[in-house]
Amino acid sequence: MTDTPHLPDPIALTKTLLACESVTPARGAVFDVIEAALLPLGFTVARFIEGEAPDGPVENLLATRAGTGTHFAFAGHLDVVPPGAGWTGDAFVPEERDGLVYGRGAVDMKGAIAAFVAAIPQTPGIPLTLILTGDEEGPATYGTQALMARMAERGVTPDLCLVGEPTSAVRLGDMVKIGRRGSVNLWIDVPGKQGHVAYPHLADNPIPKLVAILAEIDRIVLDTGNAWFQPSNIEPTDITVGNPATNIIPGHASARLSIRFNDGHRGADLIERMRAIIAAHAPEATLTARISGEAFLTQPGAFSTLIGDAIEARLGLRPDLSTTGGTSDARFLSALCPVVEFGLCNATMHKLDEAVAVDDLVALTGVYADIIARVGAL
Amino acid sequence: MTDTPHLPDPIALTKTLLACESVTPARGAVFDVIEAALLPLGFTVARFIEGEAPDGPVENLLATRAGTGTHFAFAGHLDVVPPGAGWTGDAFVPEERDGLVYGRGAVDMKGAIAAFVAAIPQTPGIPLTLILTGDEEGPATYGTQALMARMAERGVTPDLCLVGEPTSAVRLGDMVKIGRRGSVNLWIDVPGKQGHVAYPHLADNPIPKLVAILAEIDRIVLDTGNAWFQPSNIEPTDITVGNPATNIIPGHASARLSIRFNDGHRGADLIERMRAIIAAHAPEATLTARISGEAFLTQPGAFSTLIGDAIEARLGLRPDLSTTGGTSDARFLSALCPVVEFGLCNATMHKLDEAVAVDDLVALTGVYADIIARVGAL
Repeated sequence: MTDTPHLPDPIALTKTLLACESVTPARGAVFDVIEAALLPLGFTVARFIEGEAPDGPVENLLATRAGTGTHFAFAGHLDVVPPGAGWTGDAFVPEERDGLVYGRGAVDMKGAIAAFVAAIPQTPGIPLTLILTGDEEGPATYGTQALMARMAERGVTPDLCLVGEPTSAVRLGDMVKIGRRGSVNLWIDVPGKQGHVAYPHLADNPIPKLVAILAEIDRIVLDTGNAWFQPSNIEPTDITVGNPATNIIPGHASARLSIRFNDGHRGADLIERMRAIIAAHAPEATLTARISGEAFLTQPGAFSTLIGDAIEARLGLRPDLSTTGGTSDARFLSALCPVVEFGLCNATMHKLDEAVAVDDLVALTGVYADIIARVGAL
Repeated sequence: MTDTPHLPDPIALTKTLLACESVTPARGAVFDVIEAALLPLGFTVARFIEGEAPDGPVENLLATRAGTGTHFAFAGHLDVVPPGAGWTGDAFVPEERDGLVYGRGAVDMKGAIAAFVAAIPQTPGIPLTLILTGDEEGPATYGTQALMARMAERGVTPDLCLVGEPTSAVRLGDMVKIGRRGSVNLWIDVPGKQGHVAYPHLADNPIPKLVAILAEIDRIVLDTGNAWFQPSNIEPTDITVGNPATNIIPGHASARLSIRFNDGHRGADLIERMRAIIAAHAPEATLTARISGEAFLTQPGAFSTLIGDAIEARLGLRPDLSTTGGTSDARFLSALCPVVEFGLCNATMHKLDEAVAVDDLVALTGVYADIIARVGAL
């Protein structure tokens, strides 16, 4: 018999994480599990409770391991979206059936975190940082941004960052993300003066003004896309008047827009452009805007090639470099260093009976180990 | 002592009518009161229960008194709109305070009916018909239109018709109505395909189509009015999408329009015009339309002059001839004969603490008696 060091198993660790009920914002047990897995691997683990209601408190974890060479970071989140009703089993009692492990967060993204932790012992020696938040699925006010502030305080400055979001589409490794579009939500409220439809001169109907605003916005072509991004897009997502009476001119009309934009735009500029259109049709209207994230792009280059090479070596396919889909915390991390996102298949993410293939967990562990090794060899 | 015939007192009769809780559709007690008042005046009274749910049953009353000369009709309704919460007293316990009689229906239009009944004994001899419905404030499906069918069956064909709606604005007699605009309500529903805002090519947003429809409709000028009517008008009164999620493209968008139109238009033509616009922007959209009433005009002439003369003789002011405001049952009655509307002041109609001035009830009784006498002298 030989003394075998305790090595984390990605399947077992995934199941242990899935058993923690960590609906966003996550705190406590799910962080205990990761801390217990990282301490034997030589990491210094710091946990922080950040923020206050309504967007907090949130738990965050920063784990660092010294080494020499390129400083590599892995970022992810331990919170999950609510399971919703209708699961075959219990969303927080992981079950393995027919080669799949079921549980909320299986692919988004406890499985990827488990795979990365399991990959670490295979590649000792290089400086590693794990950036794990308990609020990526929620407002994210006190999540990754708060962790980045802690990193700045402590002088933790990675050279490259991999985000473990489920970027694969049909098959593990078929897609990585090298950028994300930016996102702005806008709320337009046009006040009017209520009155009877028989006496329109005594009222001020806000609907025609709102319609004129939306019609002009609908004519805008922000761009036609570029080499790495699809065209930017403005979608009206809601209109609310709330007037049940057929003979009443309403006193208010409001609309909501969602703009997803590529790296040719800045959120603030888009907001000002909308504000000018709104003011031209309804000077009395109010505009509320929230930038969920600016667009970012990690120009294809050494880092994305390295990741593509690792995927090709282990899985036999070359990933598409993509910027599609929603936002992720990579939008914040891109301020630190080149960021690429790569993780499990996203077909069941945010859905009932979310599940990860056991084979994918094993394969992803191998790819992550390969990536760490290739970064170590830079 | 002499034998004085029992003469109805307009104040007492108004109060007795107000004490009947006759929220639309009205039946029973309020009709008993009127029948009891009319029988001693020599009328033949017929009462009908008409229609079935949801728009019925409704009670209607037709009272006829034979005579010689011009056949004169008075039309009105014994139903009232719901009182709503917040009255100073009980909406169905009439109270006289400071020269006003309070109660739901005081001006719209139990007071005018009481005044007309009180005016009848002063002017015997001419043929009179009272056309009283229990559903003018509701769908009016089985109200005045059903009464007109009964009249046709019985060969009751008035030569002139006065409707007792509260047409006076600031002072009793300042306005009579010689026509009404028509009214159409339209419901537009644009179906789409729900999806995520990050993947607009997989969805079909119905909002831009609805906005294009409403923008084109907003550019329409139906007319600029004419000698007796203000311009016809299209008002959007509601838009509903009902999408709470900022990142979802909605699957439905709907809007409601109200068109008030003058005698240059027909409801059906307006509906077809809207249908063509809708189809051009959204062939899959559905349109539901309801014509509440066509426009009508009783050309100013002998009848309106007679009423103006009676008002001037009794009240010392000449009424404006108007076509403003909402619809009334005069839209139906105009098919029978020339129709003019004249009644109490409408300031408190459909409002809390609806009230009629005692002096106005007495004065209106006098004007109505004068009108009957002048019709008798034609």
